[in-house]
Amino acid sequence: MSGRHDTAAGIARVYRGSFVHSTRDAALEILNDFVLGVDKSGKITFIEEGKNVDRLAQEQGFNTADVENLGPGEFFMPGMVDTHIHASQYTYMGTALDLPLLQWLNTYTFPVESRYRDLKFARDVYTKVVKRTLRNGTTTACYFATIHTDASLLLGQIADDLGQRALVGKVCMDINPMVPQYKELLDESKDETLRFIRELLQKKSHISENKEEVELVKQLFPDCLSYTDVYLKHGLLTDKTVMAHGCHLTDEELKIFHKNGASISHCPSSNISLMSGILNVRNVQKHKVKLGLGTDVAGGYSASILDAVRRAIDTSKVLTIEHPQLRPLTFEEVFWLATLGGSEALSLDDRIGNFEVGKDFDALRVNVSVPGGPLDVFPEDVIVEKFLNLGKTPWLSFISLFLQYG
Amino acid sequence: MSGRHDTAAGIARVYRGSFVHSTRDAALEILNDFVLGVDKSGKITFIEEGKNVDRLAQEQGFNTADVENLGPGEFFMPGMVDTHIHASQYTYMGTALDLPLLQWLNTYTFPVESRYRDLKFARDVYTKVVKRTLRNGTTTACYFATIHTDASLLLGQIADDLGQRALVGKVCMDINPMVPQYKELLDESKDETLRFIRELLQKKSHISENKEEVELVKQLFPDCLSYTDVYLKHGLLTDKTVMAHGCHLTDEELKIFHKNGASISHCPSSNISLMSGILNVRNVQKHKVKLGLGTDVAGGYSASILDAVRRAIDTSKVLTIEHPQLRPLTFEEVFWLATLGGSEALSLDDRIGNFEVGKDFDALRVNVSVPGGPLDVFPEDVIVEKFLNLGKTPWLSFISLFLQYG
Ligand SMILES: [Zn+2]
Ligand SMILES: [Zn+2]
Repeated sequence: MSGRHDTAAGIARVYRGSFVHSTRDAALEILNDFVLGVDKSGKITFIEEGKNVDRLAQEQGFNTADVENLGPGEFFMPGMVDTHIHASQYTYMGTALDLPLLQWLNTYTFPVESRYRDLKFARDVYTKVVKRTLRNGTTTACYFATIHTDASLLLGQIADDLGQRALVGKVCMDINPMVPQYKELLDESKDETLRFIRELLQKKSHISENKEEVELVKQLFPDCLSYTDVYLKHGLLTDKTVMAHGCHLTDEELKIFHKNGASISHCPSSNISLMSGILNVRNVQKHKVKLGLGTDVAGGYSASILDAVRRAIDTSKVLTIEHPQLRPLTFEEVFWLATLGGSEALSLDDRIGNFEVGKDFDALRVNVSVPGGPLDVFPEDVIVEKFLNLGKTPWLSFISLFLQYG
Repeated sequence: MSGRHDTAAGIARVYRGSFVHSTRDAALEILNDFVLGVDKSGKITFIEEGKNVDRLAQEQGFNTADVENLGPGEFFMPGMVDTHIHASQYTYMGTALDLPLLQWLNTYTFPVESRYRDLKFARDVYTKVVKRTLRNGTTTACYFATIHTDASLLLGQIADDLGQRALVGKVCMDINPMVPQYKELLDESKDETLRFIRELLQKKSHISENKEEVELVKQLFPDCLSYTDVYLKHGLLTDKTVMAHGCHLTDEELKIFHKNGASISHCPSSNISLMSGILNVRNVQKHKVKLGLGTDVAGGYSASILDAVRRAIDTSKVLTIEHPQLRPLTFEEVFWLATLGGSEALSLDDRIGNFEVGKDFDALRVNVSVPGGPLDVFPEDVIVEKFLNLGKTPWLSFISLFLQYG
């Protein structure tokens, strides 16, 4: 990979070292001793082999003395994308995961959500969640907040201030909690349940997360062929749609997703923790449906996409144990999901996701050799794989020049 | 829980604050504002409610001014026990987990194992693995090394020097790699394969890790009723026996385990990564077989028992997805496995595993409120659960007074 991009903006930064990213052709491309230039608007101007640095300096008008060289244990990778995270559930993340869903909802979700009317509370939590996800390497996040407009706007503002690219959904309701609720409410009031679901559907959130839910939707929308058809008939399945989970989508539904350009957020940690089911990623790939990773905090106990990377491999291997013909995901493929795949799922792949010339330089600078860090590196190591399996914050630093200059 | 232990050794340390541990009756007991004394031989002399501190000072002969008070986000928990870890596989931990087993073996295990003839290499790696596991909170580890006597002794020495209680097995062979090898070798030389397996069995290592292996053993030992019977007939199933994995043991075999006091090391991360199968812990519990957690590095990608804690919950939930009548493990139960359960599995529960008077004070001092740490703590938090799900090194410190004084 190499290229150049003429710009009037002028070069702001030049880095030399290892760049690790995904391309359309390769789930993982490792570019050792490359040199990358960023213009003043934060866009990648060139990425070429290091040996060309003198020519590039002349052509692009920078001084080779200003080139920042990465150290031996360092590499750049694209900022990671969290395609599904409930910012408002952050306070109880990592707890309460063995309560049944209805209790989980009643004990944690409902009481906490109502507190976001209080903007001071909202500011405290949302600041923490944005700082935490940034430290975890999430430079782009698709957040769900609560029904409170001001607090939701505040979340967007905080992300912007702290340098994270955020898509914020005003309402957050989990399809999971709906299920036990439905069982109690249906006899009392089917209308109320229908209203609840219609509101939920308008929020374009979860789909086909667990089996009871799929059955419920079939009963409630008898005219629709499938869960996906419900969204489709309501005009809600477009290339701006990101559906979380999708564990129980049929092949027919995946075909509709593909046709409409809708994408799926794979949230393996949450799927395990809430025991919703396990997404067959190979089948999603077969249907060429756009796919990214999500933490689904607080259904998932971790706000780190690195955790989602590990759980995505785990769940694919669990499926292989059951169905040996299914090939488990490789770490390269999951790296792709966490970066370029996520950017595609959010329709941001024209701007971020990898180190293509013309895209924003939205990057993590990883150092696996920090003394006292979470890894012991040995000479033969595949350091990218080791980092994906064992890397922790704060041994990566976040660089997003478009925010400093854009 | 309270008690006192008369000792001539004299009090060396007194701590006041929260103590979290397992007892015979409770998977998780949280003792808030308790005071614990340690004598000069490193043993727990008393553990009582904090309000008794003045009386205790008088009786035990310490000065209340010398009491060390834990801070608000701090608690003590027992040092964790890793019942199965291959120290010699540490170099490639976190890599190569999507190679098929035979390739994994040929590419990594065999070439690396031969390097342990070199004591300089062994010292470097073993020092790193002991430091790493200690930092991860493992105060007791059952290590497997290589066939090299000197290097294996060195591992024991290093653990001792650095303050870790270690059981070291001289030989490390994985049953997993045996399987593909067997397929190739059986036609050539059944005798050689038999010798290989007999040597393996003598090492009391893995059992019933995956299904092919179970079949293999049946074929090779037609006179034995089961895999377990093979060990039993060879006099290898005793209360000093710790078998790793056990994913595919039958009820009959579990009964034999129970009868002979043998224990199982549950290695969930490795079971997923190598796609061996998933241990049904509920069934092991039903048969009252002793059970601890193991990382099984490098089949498992992490040397942290906290990771094993999380994966043990995950795998139990995966089983519940498949069999909804199976109750998933709670975090309290897995805490028990990581501490008291592990000490029982290694027959060390007379000395370690919880904060009973008379046992060694083998403890981790955890602080979940360190600025810049891996957790954001909110007032309502169940901090033990949050720590188990999200805690990371180095936000715990290791205290093992028996080593300083014993
Ligand atoms: Zn969600
Ligand atoms: Zn092993």
